[in-house]
Amino acid sequence: VEAQDQDLLVDLLGQLHEADQADLLEQVSPQDRESLVRLWGERFDGAVLYELEEGVRDEILEIVDPRVLASAVQEMETDDLVYLVEDMEDAQKAEVLGALDDADRVAVEASLQYEEYTAGRLMSREMVTCPPHWTVGEAIDFMRASEDLPETFYKVILVDPRMHVAGTVALGSIMANRREVKLIDLADTAPRLIRADQPNEDVAYLFNHYHMVSAPVVDGDGRLVGVITIDDAMEILEEEVEEDIMRLGGVGDEELSDSVWETARARFPWLAVNLVTAIIASLVIALFEDTIEAIVALAVLMPIIASMGGNAATQTLTVAVRALATRDLTRANAWRIIRRETLVGLGNGIAFAVIIAGVGLAWFGSPMLGVVLALAMVINLLVAGLSGILIPMALEKAGADPALASGTFVTTVTDVVGFFAFLGLAGILLL
Amino acid sequence: VEAQDQDLLVDLLGQLHEADQADLLEQVSPQDRESLVRLWGERFDGAVLYELEEGVRDEILEIVDPRVLASAVQEMETDDLVYLVEDMEDAQKAEVLGALDDADRVAVEASLQYEEYTAGRLMSREMVTCPPHWTVGEAIDFMRASEDLPETFYKVILVDPRMHVAGTVALGSIMANRREVKLIDLADTAPRLIRADQPNEDVAYLFNHYHMVSAPVVDGDGRLVGVITIDDAMEILEEEVEEDIMRLGGVGDEELSDSVWETARARFPWLAVNLVTAIIASLVIALFEDTIEAIVALAVLMPIIASMGGNAATQTLTVAVRALATRDLTRANAWRIIRRETLVGLGNGIAFAVIIAGVGLAWFGSPMLGVVLALAMVINLLVAGLSGILIPMALEKAGADPALASGTFVTTVTDVVGFFAFLGLAGILLL
Repeated sequence: VEAQDQDLLVDLLGQLHEADQADLLEQVSPQDRESLVRLWGERFDGAVLYELEEGVRDEILEIVDPRVLASAVQEMETDDLVYLVEDMEDAQKAEVLGALDDADRVAVEASLQYEEYTAGRLMSREMVTCPPHWTVGEAIDFMRASEDLPETFYKVILVDPRMHVAGTVALGSIMANRREVKLIDLADTAPRLIRADQPNEDVAYLFNHYHMVSAPVVDGDGRLVGVITIDDAMEILEEEVEEDIMRLGGVGDEELSDSVWETARARFPWLAVNLVTAIIASLVIALFEDTIEAIVALAVLMPIIASMGGNAATQTLTVAVRALATRDLTRANAWRIIRRETLVGLGNGIAFAVIIAGVGLAWFGSPMLGVVLALAMVINLLVAGLSGILIPMALEKAGADPALASGTFVTTVTDVVGFFAFLGLAGILLL
Repeated sequence: VEAQDQDLLVDLLGQLHEADQADLLEQVSPQDRESLVRLWGERFDGAVLYELEEGVRDEILEIVDPRVLASAVQEMETDDLVYLVEDMEDAQKAEVLGALDDADRVAVEASLQYEEYTAGRLMSREMVTCPPHWTVGEAIDFMRASEDLPETFYKVILVDPRMHVAGTVALGSIMANRREVKLIDLADTAPRLIRADQPNEDVAYLFNHYHMVSAPVVDGDGRLVGVITIDDAMEILEEEVEEDIMRLGGVGDEELSDSVWETARARFPWLAVNLVTAIIASLVIALFEDTIEAIVALAVLMPIIASMGGNAATQTLTVAVRALATRDLTRANAWRIIRRETLVGLGNGIAFAVIIAGVGLAWFGSPMLGVVLALAMVINLLVAGLSGILIPMALEKAGADPALASGTFVTTVTDVVGFFAFLGLAGILLL
């Protein structure tokens, strides 16, 4: 296909949704990507840019002819444009903005005034507003006369002359009522409003929690400035959860199309932190070199205690981080959850203490070694439960993201406690 | 408040959204929950049930008076009812279904015919359909005359007499056009259809990937049976990602309101699997008891190699599991990603080999120990990268969920390889 047949290419790609065209571009090698985009030429579609992940998009922006780009962006909605433009370098940004008509450019520039990752960046400026005293008939006539209705919208927003929101009316109920019915009588007169400076995280939470479909966005003075719809919220929700998963796994915001060098460099810091904590655990072991020298079996068994503690802590931690993110873990139930995790740690600690004592006894034939293993297991799983819940809560309280650093802290605790308890008890009870 | 003042309680709760009422019920203790629901009495709202997590819901269903329940469910939409009823015991299910009017009962029963976690269960039966030859005016008159329009809907579905979908028309474009325009001329005549037997996972993917707002659901013969809207898809998307996070953390589908006993029992199997794999790693160490007896420093340092391997593998694994879930990792780019992960493992392996060799030399003053540490580090991080990508891909190919079991497999590999490489090389080079 890549043998220069532009018509065939455009034809084939034209059958695909933009999201699939973007997937295709992401999955081919950088060389193929470049020749594909060049061949695409001026029939390249701006919507594809929106679908691409950042690394690939930057690459393609450098290849695409500025004139093609300018015409490609003219048909995009302002919220998608903001998303596209916000990461561009200044020269490129100016070029894209210059290609827009005045109304769109002003809208995009106004959105860019808001902080990144807030509702102000997310919202669309395309919305349908009416005075509250209008009737269904007037609203329908107004919409029929408008040339520039948003591509999709679900609600008409009622605003007074000072742009304060008086209510929202679902399109469905406009349809379902007679022309003479007043809009205000059909309206939800106390809709949930979103402030333009609210972080994305709040937006995703509100939409998800209250099953919202669209929400008016207001500025600090309560004036309507835009609207956020559920499809934006869904994207944000996915990004937020994605970020949590990646951070829990010790990975930053890398993308599948990143190069080897970018990926290795991005993962290095996390491994470096882990190296430091692993060395701390080693220092604890070093304290007991004499004990290990006397009983080598201890070196064989000690990773079991540490590993079980690490796993139990990860379980608790995962639950805690999710519960904090979904706001299910609050001050109201914190004590109950801490108590629960402590008891779960103790319960499973006792269960596995019995098992591991049996293993120790069967393997090395020493009842006292079994006792040491059992005691160390109970202690470490109890500490795992406690630190798994307390550390993320403390990080949240300190204003940090509990998903980001909890893992390392928590497993350091269980490693140190695990080695210390096991080797320490062995030193006392076995020597 | 719980001192018997029903009016005050209902008044206070009435100011809250059902989702917040549900949160309140989830966060108080079981005793408080019971007295709250009893006091609520017959003014209890069915929508709250829908918002509750399963454990708490079951509790409350046992408390609530069947008559109250029956009247509470009458106002719910059929898709919410299906969600509520599907987990009930037969007696309770029959009671709720009996309380519904005939049309709703038939709709709920029809949805329950489909497998759990498929589009058929998820879809709503409330939808607005018109013949394709109708005009905008006819559609509006039809909707004005209908008594039972869905609470929210975004599109009118055009169906022929055999219930095959001819297209969908957004409400916005009906509004924006004159009464005499034909619906078919405004329609998207090739909308993406969802088959009733498609799994939830596919539904979430399609909505997210193609930014869909609503989609007609068809049966095996292509006949329209329902509609899924983006709010359902958003919930499913969140559930799917939640499940991935929990499984990566070694936790099942536990809820914050589960009891100590339920939680401990749910987490036990995962810890048991980990115990087995930890014992396997210990068996590897046991092979080298003589080596450790000769040089105790090995016991001090060996957890560092294992821990770095485990962390590097978790990084790769997290990226792989996510990429598989979002369908970014496909057969088309698999080889490129495997190659990338191998090179990243090698690169960071070499970087940390240099660092750890320095640490070993500084701490124990033995250059040869530094060499052993360095070689073991390179080997283990390389294996970590490879197993971190290959194991989830293999699980996916075998039809298992890569999030579920990858973690244990992968860290077992890095523990075994780490201990074997480090102690084995030490035996050869240091003794």
